[in-house]
This record gives sequence, C-alpha cells and structure tokens, in this order.
Amino acid sequence: MTIHDFHDHALGLRLRHLLDHKTKPVGSLGRIESLAMQVGLVLGTEAPRLLQPQLVVFAADHGLATHGVSAYPSDVTWQMVENFLAGGAAVSVLARQHGLALTVVDCGVRHDFAPRPGLLNRKVAPGTADALSGPAMTPAQCEQAIETGRQVVRSLPGNALLLGEMGIGNSSAAALLLARLTGSDIADCTGAGTGLDAAGLERKRALLAQVLARHAEATTPRAALAAFGGFEIAALVGAVLEATAQRRVVVVDGFITSAAVLVARALDPAVAWCCVFSHRSGEAGHGLMLRHLGPDGSAPARPLLDLGLRLGEGSGAALAWPLLVSACALLRDMASFESAGVSRSGG
Amino acid sequence: MTIHDFHDHALGLRLRHLLDHKTKPVGSLGRIESLAMQVGLVLGTEAPRLLQPQLVVFAADHGLATHGVSAYPSDVTWQMVENFLAGGAAVSVLARQHGLALTVVDCGVRHDFAPRPGLLNRKVAPGTADALSGPAMTPAQCEQAIETGRQVVRSLPGNALLLGEMGIGNSSAAALLLARLTGSDIADCTGAGTGLDAAGLERKRALLAQVLARHAEATTPRAALAAFGGFEIAALVGAVLEATAQRRVVVVDGFITSAAVLVARALDPAVAWCCVFSHRSGEAGHGLMLRHLGPDGSAPARPLLDLGLRLGEGSGAALAWPLLVSACALLRDMASFESAGVSRSGG
Repeated sequence: MTIHDFHDHALGLRLRHLLDHKTKPVGSLGRIESLAMQVGLVLGTEAPRLLQPQLVVFAADHGLATHGVSAYPSDVTWQMVENFLAGGAAVSVLARQHGLALTVVDCGVRHDFAPRPGLLNRKVAPGTADALSGPAMTPAQCEQAIETGRQVVRSLPGNALLLGEMGIGNSSAAALLLARLTGSDIADCTGAGTGLDAAGLERKRALLAQVLARHAEATTPRAALAAFGGFEIAALVGAVLEATAQRRVVVVDGFITSAAVLVARALDPAVAWCCVFSHRSGEAGHGLMLRHLGPDGSAPARPLLDLGLRLGEGSGAALAWPLLVSACALLRDMASFESAGVSRSGG
Repeated sequence: MTIHDFHDHALGLRLRHLLDHKTKPVGSLGRIESLAMQVGLVLGTEAPRLLQPQLVVFAADHGLATHGVSAYPSDVTWQMVENFLAGGAAVSVLARQHGLALTVVDCGVRHDFAPRPGLLNRKVAPGTADALSGPAMTPAQCEQAIETGRQVVRSLPGNALLLGEMGIGNSSAAALLLARLTGSDIADCTGAGTGLDAAGLERKRALLAQVLARHAEATTPRAALAAFGGFEIAALVGAVLEATAQRRVVVVDGFITSAAVLVARALDPAVAWCCVFSHRSGEAGHGLMLRHLGPDGSAPARPLLDLGLRLGEGSGAALAWPLLVSACALLRDMASFESAGVSRSGG
C-alpha cells in the first residue's frame, strides 16, 4: 500500500462533482463534505457504505505507572476492562447506541481475565517494564504487540475500524512519543491525563523529561515505541497499519490513539489517508499532536468534534461515528439540482 | 413557565452527583456532561429519554429577496420544499438516518403546494412584504405566524423538537434581527448566506443598513420581528415558546433558527434553558449571535458542533442529534465506580 493508491484523481473529481451538484449551496455542508470525500476515496467508491464497524479497545499496563504519573492506580486498567465487558463503561454504552461491535484486546494487562465473548487474550507480558530504568519493551515484544494489532484487524470483518485504548499511565507514553517523534518540548506534550492536580502534573513533567533523556538514542519510530511503550499503543500501531493496507476507514479517538497514528504514519505515510480524527481532546498535548497529523503534513488534522473529552476508551470515536454515517448517506442519497428540479445560484 | 421552574436545584445536584460517580474521571466527558445535565433538567428527570423527536422545517418567502440579497432566486424556496418532501434534501436524508419525524410547514411560501403527508399548509400570505418600503408583516400577520408555530408544536408528539427553516432571503431577516436586538453593527451581522460573492455581500450590507434605518422605531422584539420578517422566523419563535412552555428539549439549527431564539428569549427568558445549540454556523454573524445566547446571558452559548455548516434546513440540528441521545444514554446506563467495583482516583 502506497499513498498513490489513495490518489485516485479521477474518483476524487467524480466525488467533488457529485457533492457540488447536490441540492445545497456549494460547500455548505462544510467539514462533512471533506469527510465524504475522504471516506469515498478510502473505500474507492462514489457510493460509500460503512459495513460492520468494529470498535476495538486495546488494553495494557505501564511500568511507569508505579511512579504516580496517573491520578488512578494501575488496578483501574483491569477493572475498566471488566466494566467494558459488563457493558457499564462509556464506550460500552456508546457502542450499543450505534450498533458498533465492541472487542477488548488484552495486550498486557497485569491481571488474569476469565475468558469470555468480546475479550481477546493477546497478552505480551503483564505490563511493560519501567521506562525510567530501561526500555518499556524489548524489540521482540514491540514487534509482537504490533503484530497482535495487525492480526486482530485481520480477524474482524467490516470496512471501518474505531480505535480506543485503556491503560493507566498511557498518556505518559503518548506524551513521550509525541516529544520524541516531533522534537517538541516534553512539557508541551504532557497533560493532566485522567485528572492530575497542578503538583501532580509538575511531577509528571519532571519524570517524563528524565525518561526522555534516558532514551536519547531511541530516535526511530520503532525504537521510541519500544523505549516508551505501551503494549496497547504498539498494538494500535499494528491495527492502523493493517487497516490502511486493507483500506478500512480508521476512526481515531484521542491523545493516546493519535500517538499510535503518529508512529504508524512514520512507518507508512498512507496511514494519513485512512484516518479520521474524531475529536480534539481536552488533554493538553493533543492540539500539538494534531498539528503533526494533517493529511499533507502542512495543515493540521481537523478533528470532527471539539467537546473537551478526555476519557479515551474510544469514546470520542464512538461519539463522532454518526457523522461518518451521515457523510456517506448524504453522498449516496441526496438529490442533485437536476434530479430534484431546483434552480441553481446565479440564475 | 418561568426560569425558576427549570431551577430545580435538588435535581441539578442529583444529576451532578450521578455524573461524578460514573466510571470515568470527573468531567472527562466534557461538553457531553453539561448536555446531559441540561436535558435532565429540561425533562425533569435523572434518567432522561428523548421520545418521538420531531424535526420541523418552517418555510416562507421574503419580499426583500427581490433586491438580490441571496445567491438563489425565490423559486428555490418552493423547489426545496418539494425536495424535502420527496426525500432528496440533506435534512431528509439525515432525518431518515436518525429516525426523526420530518414535518414541513408552509408559513408563507409564494407557491401553491398540492396537499400531501408531511406538509402542513399554514400560509399566512404568499411571502412577506418588502421590508425596504414598509414592515415585512402587519402586527396581525406576525401574531398569526407566531401562533402557527405554537399550534404546530401542540399538534406534534414527543419531548424533543429539532428546528429548521427554508426561505430564500432569510439570512437578511436574521441579520436585521440580530443587529436590532443586540445593538450590533449590521455589517458584523451580515454574511454571504448561501453563497454571495464579495460584491454581492457589499450590496447586501448596504441594503440591510437601509432597511434597518427605515425601521428605526421597531425596537421591541415583536416590532422588530414584524418589521424584518419572515413568517418562518415568527413561526419558529412561536414553536420555541411553546416547546419551552411544554418543557421539550429544543435543538436549534444555525443562524436563522438562532435569530428566532433571540426573539423568543427576549419574550420569555426560560427559552434559554430548553435550547441546545447544535452547531456554530459558517455564516459570518452566528458567532456574534451565540455570544448573546448563552444560558446566563454572560458566557456565550456553546454549540455542539463546529463544522463550517451553512445550509440551514435543520441539517445541523439533525447532525448533532445523536450527541443528545448519547448524553441521555450515558446518564442512564453507565455504571458507577461502586456498582462496577472500580477504584477511585487519589487511591
């Protein structure tokens, strides 16, 4: 898969022509029109339909969490996985509302789950190692986690993938990846995560600066990913790469999922074409991250929602999902000026 | 209905407590949490359900349109009404997607429609008079149009009302209402509507300044509404007032619908409690208008979407609709930390 496969210039022109002849002023559906263009190009059709959408939540624990980088204890990772499966989490409620198949993938949670429907046991290890004292993952673990993400996508049907994550401490890993891969100041990349107070945020910033310095040699995307973790982020990288190879529409959630896209895109630029950014997170570094994730590398990525969400789980992806369905429906089902007998402007 | 009926302080506390004990960091669902609070307060329950949502599009023509204030000819009003009813317009497609009952109300379109399901004939007159030479409506016509909106809402079931409009020239009426009721410069209130070019926009601004000066005495909300029109805006005012009196959730579309809310709120401050602003329009004056429509009169109204939409019809209200359904579902169905056995922060 190369970028050129998505550059179907003729299809792009046909999609633009279709949208411009719908019964509405040209461009008046704003961002929904560019979304319709993108989905049409990814799926390679003027009449896109999103089929069997899959919401996949990758979960794992982080060695760095022992340093108090999160407002919550690590046990919350497995407790929330149980909550996802029991149907009580935000992402569970939203998946039911929108008819999204929900799969939770244990990539490395520090807990043994009883097997059950909707849960895939793909544990690489019970949590990553402490990135302050060494790499979070070995190169082999990193490859295994990426391959896990690829395999999960291959095993699921449909042409649309909504991505989420759960992992106490993973906003630290995401901040480290953002800082390293974009050269940004770690202080600008670091936010309150699930709710640190000001003092906690200061401690997190200082710790992450240390971790970043500790892994100064980890400059390639793969090396940075192995150095900082986590298993769920590496699995997300694999999922994004596989979905891109299969031309599925990828709906990206917030700060942590976007960090995985940042890594995946460094490995395959075609990733940019498949990713729809569902929302601008309330997490401090997400705006900065989106500036590095625009479709052509210059303009920032334009997320669909800006609601101050900072929950993760794929909740933002699920909240934005109906807008993708709308974009396809409008492209397929709206009448043209000609077919509806409506006068054009300037007449 | 007074504002105090919505100030159920005890219910507000119960809703806040419920949201803060859901399995998520406090406040992490951002704007969706304030939306859940609002819908709970309007419907007077901790477990809100939106039932039989009604999308009502009020349509009428404008005398001012003869002066070329729109990029489209007046005939487009009736042609688009036909398109709504035939199912080919954006709002038709979105209403189908979301299971919204769609009703089109002819308040004063310059065209005779054949009767059919989904269309209510409530014509006050075939278009308003030219506001440049006199009031767009007589006081009696204005009252009739307001009463039409009230009656339509009374005739429809459900506890949620999504509002839209169609009327070539009605961004002019909305701009005039905004300028008069808020004391804003008419140039700041005037935008390109459905797509005027720069020269057309300059002409529109100059004409609207003349119209505004022509009706210097029309300073009350009712007098301004009668002076500037249109029938569909007056009907929207009535619909908003009636929905507020009945404690229905009102989903406001873009610039023109917001102008009706501006008038309705001046007549009954309780309107502010029932209105959910679905999106920030791409129309130039909408940001200014939202600054005057915040819940307590100081902070601006916070629309749910910001997608550069400038189509009207209720299309923005329909696009935002799933977010209201989500807010209710999350409030009703998410587990609490206690019920799910998840550890709290700071633990």
